[in-house]
Amino acid sequence: MTPNSRIQLAHGNGGRLMRELIETVFVRHLANPCLDTDLDGATVPLRAGHIVLSTDAFTVQPLEFPGGDIGKLAVNGTVNDLAVAGATPQYLTLNAIIEEGFAIEQLDRIVLGIARAARAAQVAVVAGDTKVVRRGEASGLYLATTGVGLRPDGLRLGMAHVKEGDRILVSGPVGDHGTAVLLAREEFGLAGELKSDCANVIGLAQALLPIRGLRFMRDPTRGGLATVCHELCRGTGLGIVLGESAIPVFPEVRAVCDMLGYDPLYLACEGRVVAVVAAHAAAAALTAWRSLPEGRESAIVGAVSGERRCVMLRTALGGERYLEELEDDPLPRIC
Amino acid sequence: MTPNSRIQLAHGNGGRLMRELIETVFVRHLANPCLDTDLDGATVPLRAGHIVLSTDAFTVQPLEFPGGDIGKLAVNGTVNDLAVAGATPQYLTLNAIIEEGFAIEQLDRIVLGIARAARAAQVAVVAGDTKVVRRGEASGLYLATTGVGLRPDGLRLGMAHVKEGDRILVSGPVGDHGTAVLLAREEFGLAGELKSDCANVIGLAQALLPIRGLRFMRDPTRGGLATVCHELCRGTGLGIVLGESAIPVFPEVRAVCDMLGYDPLYLACEGRVVAVVAAHAAAAALTAWRSLPEGRESAIVGAVSGERRCVMLRTALGGERYLEELEDDPLPRIC
Repeated sequence: MTPNSRIQLAHGNGGRLMRELIETVFVRHLANPCLDTDLDGATVPLRAGHIVLSTDAFTVQPLEFPGGDIGKLAVNGTVNDLAVAGATPQYLTLNAIIEEGFAIEQLDRIVLGIARAARAAQVAVVAGDTKVVRRGEASGLYLATTGVGLRPDGLRLGMAHVKEGDRILVSGPVGDHGTAVLLAREEFGLAGELKSDCANVIGLAQALLPIRGLRFMRDPTRGGLATVCHELCRGTGLGIVLGESAIPVFPEVRAVCDMLGYDPLYLACEGRVVAVVAAHAAAAALTAWRSLPEGRESAIVGAVSGERRCVMLRTALGGERYLEELEDDPLPRIC
Repeated sequence: MTPNSRIQLAHGNGGRLMRELIETVFVRHLANPCLDTDLDGATVPLRAGHIVLSTDAFTVQPLEFPGGDIGKLAVNGTVNDLAVAGATPQYLTLNAIIEEGFAIEQLDRIVLGIARAARAAQVAVVAGDTKVVRRGEASGLYLATTGVGLRPDGLRLGMAHVKEGDRILVSGPVGDHGTAVLLAREEFGLAGELKSDCANVIGLAQALLPIRGLRFMRDPTRGGLATVCHELCRGTGLGIVLGESAIPVFPEVRAVCDMLGYDPLYLACEGRVVAVVAAHAAAAALTAWRSLPEGRESAIVGAVSGERRCVMLRTALGGERYLEELEDDPLPRIC
């Protein structure tokens, strides 16, 4: 395979070209004892108990952006859904829908991104599938990943446990991923220092699991922190009050959002956790997070209120405004 | 949601429209006790042991064809990979990448196809994800499914067990799916009685599991029977000899292939099994298959030879010809 090779429709037909592509690109980076390309399914050992299954498709544009690429995102997006459910990620499967004419060199770079993110998360990619579609039909590449994680028995975690008075924490500044992808789009003609926060949140999630009073965790991806709060309101019948000045936002993110008219509370993060913990446990949770490099800027940003089934923001100037549920898409294709 | 509603980019943003789409289309058809749309991951019980994971993306054109649609295909394609690995399918996850402007009525029909196929296979769709991409991408809809199956302990099944003298069986006529999709494409201007064989093969696979001497099973999808034989040769170092007159092919499939220049041995099936069994067990395997409605036309079509690492066809006229490994794609986008 020469550096200038490009994907052909025949790379998706089950024959020689497809086999060679899988061997030279996918298997080279992703090899592990469970990955057997002679089989359409991977057989893997598992302890009895409860597993968590999660799946996500990725259509981000552009495919590569400061701080990550669609491959890194596809691993972390699915791994993080398992982690915030309290599970330890074990196995991943991978689908690639590739456009005819796509540069194999770029594919190789992205599969390397997958391999590095999988190593960092200690998950094995055990099965995969490749499809090739005509020019123009997949903006280069779409990925989909599915993850299997093991969940400890007796874990009491979920919206049903959320109560009035509980505190809302975020593990770090919000809106970085959305803003970084926005800036990476040529049409804006802006270049910033800003990088996506794309990373796995396994360490953050596992740091909170031993804390009595942990109720719920979620990674605030599409729709951002505001959308997680709306989901909580809908799921619990309770309200959320956020304190604007308590929510960490990088100055560069705030500047870009002010300039372009976005609200960072609705922009995607890809390496943060929103947690709900009992009031008595909030300080312990914050201490646990702040002891981790990726949680140094974590903060208590709000509380669950019994009064209103809505998301309210106490502004820095002392006012109040409702955060509406997302309607139009402020920023399509960010994951 | 009115009958003429169409997908908008905002249906993919994590907000209200996406939630409504998921509730009115996906959850309505796919509801089951493990599917919880408030969570990004599904927690499901599992016995200890070995699980099989399989994943597949689906980009078939057209999305609906005689005998099935992309939804039915997406369930059976993944379920069948588990079944031929000797596993009992348990859970599925589902990704939908939908084009802006796609008719919600058609999406609804396709999700119904998913629900019916899942019920027939006795699997629960436990987690899902929806992405919306711009007009002109995704040729309407792509799906990806991942399956989790339970595999009995002690099962000796796989290419490593294949030996010289073993017999090759197919569970029914080959090439139906590829030919049906071909005819469904307007550009050919042909209409036939022919239907895709799209179906789950759980019954066929489980009928062979008790047979001592069962070595290997595979569903001959992309690349058809010939490609499964090539995979066997590569994986075992042995050769395969097929008897042309023994291979069941529907007369309509043969007629279309003759007319358009296709070879049915390379065309996809989506409801057949290729099995390798010891010579002494071939009759028992055939009897087991023929006792099932979906195996009535099963046949012993060849044998494993020690002489050549290639696939050879004994023609009906008494000649021999090599079946080459697939190079160009004879028929893109059939699954």
